[in-house]
Amino acid sequence: MELSSTSVVPVRFETHPSRYVHWRLEVEPPMARLVMDVQEDRPLRPGYPLKTNSYDLGVDIELADAVGRLRFEHPEVKALVVTSGKDRIFCSGANIYMLGSSSHSFKVNFCKYTNETRLAIEDASSSSRLKSLAAVNGACAGGGYELALACDEILLVDDASSAVSLPEVSLLAVLPGTGGLTRVTDKRKVRRDLADVFSSLGEGVKGKRAVEWRLVDETVALSRFTARVSERARALAASVPDKPGPGVVLPPLEGRYSDDAIEHRYVHLKVDAGARVAELTVLGPDSGEPDSPAAIRERGGELWSLRAFRELDDVLLDLRFNRPEVGVVVLKTRGDAPRVLAADAALAANPGDWFVNEVVHHLKRVLKRLDLTARSLIALVDEGSCFAGSLMELALAADRSYMLSSDGGPTIAFSPLNRGALPMANGLSRLATRFLAEPATAEVPLDQAFDAGAAAKAGLVTFAPDEIDWDDEVRLVLEERASLSPDALTGMEANLRFAGPETMETKIFGRLSAWQNWIFQRPNAVGERGALTLYGKPERAKFSWIRT
Amino acid sequence: MELSSTSVVPVRFETHPSRYVHWRLEVEPPMARLVMDVQEDRPLRPGYPLKTNSYDLGVDIELADAVGRLRFEHPEVKALVVTSGKDRIFCSGANIYMLGSSSHSFKVNFCKYTNETRLAIEDASSSSRLKSLAAVNGACAGGGYELALACDEILLVDDASSAVSLPEVSLLAVLPGTGGLTRVTDKRKVRRDLADVFSSLGEGVKGKRAVEWRLVDETVALSRFTARVSERARALAASVPDKPGPGVVLPPLEGRYSDDAIEHRYVHLKVDAGARVAELTVLGPDSGEPDSPAAIRERGGELWSLRAFRELDDVLLDLRFNRPEVGVVVLKTRGDAPRVLAADAALAANPGDWFVNEVVHHLKRVLKRLDLTARSLIALVDEGSCFAGSLMELALAADRSYMLSSDGGPTIAFSPLNRGALPMANGLSRLATRFLAEPATAEVPLDQAFDAGAAAKAGLVTFAPDEIDWDDEVRLVLEERASLSPDALTGMEANLRFAGPETMETKIFGRLSAWQNWIFQRPNAVGERGALTLYGKPERAKFSWIRT
Repeated sequence: MELSSTSVVPVRFETHPSRYVHWRLEVEPPMARLVMDVQEDRPLRPGYPLKTNSYDLGVDIELADAVGRLRFEHPEVKALVVTSGKDRIFCSGANIYMLGSSSHSFKVNFCKYTNETRLAIEDASSSSRLKSLAAVNGACAGGGYELALACDEILLVDDASSAVSLPEVSLLAVLPGTGGLTRVTDKRKVRRDLADVFSSLGEGVKGKRAVEWRLVDETVALSRFTARVSERARALAASVPDKPGPGVVLPPLEGRYSDDAIEHRYVHLKVDAGARVAELTVLGPDSGEPDSPAAIRERGGELWSLRAFRELDDVLLDLRFNRPEVGVVVLKTRGDAPRVLAADAALAANPGDWFVNEVVHHLKRVLKRLDLTARSLIALVDEGSCFAGSLMELALAADRSYMLSSDGGPTIAFSPLNRGALPMANGLSRLATRFLAEPATAEVPLDQAFDAGAAAKAGLVTFAPDEIDWDDEVRLVLEERASLSPDALTGMEANLRFAGPETMETKIFGRLSAWQNWIFQRPNAVGERGALTLYGKPERAKFSWIRT
Repeated sequence: MELSSTSVVPVRFETHPSRYVHWRLEVEPPMARLVMDVQEDRPLRPGYPLKTNSYDLGVDIELADAVGRLRFEHPEVKALVVTSGKDRIFCSGANIYMLGSSSHSFKVNFCKYTNETRLAIEDASSSSRLKSLAAVNGACAGGGYELALACDEILLVDDASSAVSLPEVSLLAVLPGTGGLTRVTDKRKVRRDLADVFSSLGEGVKGKRAVEWRLVDETVALSRFTARVSERARALAASVPDKPGPGVVLPPLEGRYSDDAIEHRYVHLKVDAGARVAELTVLGPDSGEPDSPAAIRERGGELWSLRAFRELDDVLLDLRFNRPEVGVVVLKTRGDAPRVLAADAALAANPGDWFVNEVVHHLKRVLKRLDLTARSLIALVDEGSCFAGSLMELALAADRSYMLSSDGGPTIAFSPLNRGALPMANGLSRLATRFLAEPATAEVPLDQAFDAGAAAKAGLVTFAPDEIDWDDEVRLVLEERASLSPDALTGMEANLRFAGPETMETKIFGRLSAWQNWIFQRPNAVGERGALTLYGKPERAKFSWIRT
């Protein structure tokens, strides 16, 4: 039985530590512990028990919430210990029955979200002075090891049985696709032939060899494990400066969801199911935004920049999981451009303030999520829009942008945030990625409002139709786009959006995920006699031996 | 009907200009013209007429031969004009009926080979002072434009009808997968939104817009086209230094092929079909190799380094296309290591000699072909082997290497060629890729023969079993490897082999090809109602609208 990705019950992405089912968040400044203790009878959808600390999307939603929330609500925490609450098992990875019974589209989007969560752990370390330590206190397989790989350090208990392993290839005929193969070679820099042995060996590697092969940083006898984990976590915490001041609570978003719409305070989604087009509108600040660090802190979770992008994040995830037939997302903005620019300027002026820093990195992560959303993105710079600064990034993330050319019509403008503070996964700003041929063009002036003519001339928008042509051009592009093969568009956009350099992050979503998605289509994995399909059943998988 | 990739008639990859069916090679130093004039009634296999200068593997084998042969046989040629012998059509790309009727494995290997050929055109420009110009004298679609993209310059005739286009997404629901999407953004640096418009627009772009969008370098009126092409070709030829002296003729290889073996002079393949394992043995030089440029030139096409690697190239292509069920290739060598090192040293000592330079770059390309061969590669450093210098690259390219540990047993050694002259597609030497964690370790000493103990200690081989364990260990790894899913291994190896940085070349084989291979599995393209399947038929494709 295949679980549809358009289930009757939509997936919701907001949660709170008080509602966690599968994790315990224990805060003991300067440390925190995230304890994975999966409740096997509470999967996100019925049909697969979450045995042996295996995870599904519901488990990962809580993890993503915890990591994101720690950064805002607990600045006093500087080291995060990720460990397990089970006896002798750290984590056995993604639940195989869940994967085996999920639709292709769900599998792909589940892996993408899990990858984004792993990358968020690394982003917390590199951008947010929140170091992480995987305290691997038991067997650690597949996605469990991939979670550990996302941490700065891995400590493995040396109890003669606990091993780290990537059994995907040998057990399931799929890849360790949540960053596993990429992080083993590119982050841990495991020698490629040892990585080959490790990744084709179901039983994994433990003890001294795990350290020698660089798979873990240290193995520690069971009797000393807790003490050593504390010691290393304290050292990690001591390695980064403090983030002074109280935390900022992230309020609930309280969105209203229906079959054809989502209503947040600043972000609205309207779906035309027949056309397979959704209109996503982001509103600018509804009043003046605070500009001093103190005032910004006081506004806290209600700061426009933070709230609007949290809402945007929620809508993007809803689109991915709950509205798989929407092929085109029309990106619109409404509001007052100077207010957006002022809000950006206040962020840009206070890079040393930890909360401001968190807000900017949050914007960055949400915009990366947009880049990686496999829907055609068309930005419409129309009357009343405010594509300025951080909101201009939406237009730059779009596959195409259309800007209305008319007297007194819309303008676009830039803030200091457009100049590198919000990099794409490839490490470049969206402007730099856009102007690979003429890097100087990416240095846009910050004191200029571009009308359609100037924007088109500067290459900042794709087309600038006038009022007479506008409706027809917009209608045509939406119809054309919605008529093309969704798969071909996904592949095309995954290539064109990531022009220029590759990073470990883009390798995970490009090389690794694309191969995994291919394998997720192959009969050797997902056919009636495929290894993923037959996992846990008495029959043995039957492979076609043709090498491709 | 699906053409099997294991056709009764095996594909042969050797050809010669005197036997070309689809191309004319016209040499007029310092220029040469390669004129594509595809004979539609002579496809490689029956079943699809090669209309409108479309190509199949047979057409591309001739192109690869021409580009490779020019470098050795015609050093006086410094600019290559690629053009069409047809009226009003340059090239319409890969033949769709051929693609639609081919097995998945054949499609993937066909695209890989075509990609390698396009990259060889670029390698001739960057490494061999052979510049190229696409003289696009008619409609130029899909793979035709991808061929043009591989050239240094693109001139498009301005005749009010000829356009360049990538109609794959809109017509066939597949990608421009032979480097198209990657070269548009990363080589030509077309703005990503314009690339989006171009790649989703069936009819293409012509005239002034094609230049403005950076899709071509120049458009030229029909009346001036021939003159302008000559002028630009002369300018390209004048931009690079001469390669003095007569050319070196590449002799026929005269291999003997059978169901379970290939016999070349220096390279032998032996297939155990039941085990799905092939043993590929490369012999070292059978006598002393010449060491002065003059003597090397005199040995010419019979130079061991050149001949052995040409034979290796032939065997790799045979494996890919004619023996798809071979899952594991055991790499062996036999011969005298000092002779291999002497042959390498003679090459390394004469980097300024154009012929020596060509030989080294040929080695480089063949080794890249090995890296990209989707079979498990296990190197056996056993008694009588000569894994030294350029042949040691075989072991470094392997997924794993096993070295016999015994008194007076085999040794391995390095030559200057191991230090960067034979880079992988990622731009690093195989040693540097292997030792990402400890770059200093990649600086191996050149005056040392490593026995198994020393080699294992230095991380240069994976395992070093002794005589008692050798047979069992080798048997086990071959059995284990041959038992795993061929698809999972292909995906795993495609990730682990390319640790470290990515380049345009690796992006083509990683990001672009992996997505294309995914699409080549998707019903929207290849299902009964898929766009590729239905091309040219009256029915319209029917898509699933689920976005993945």
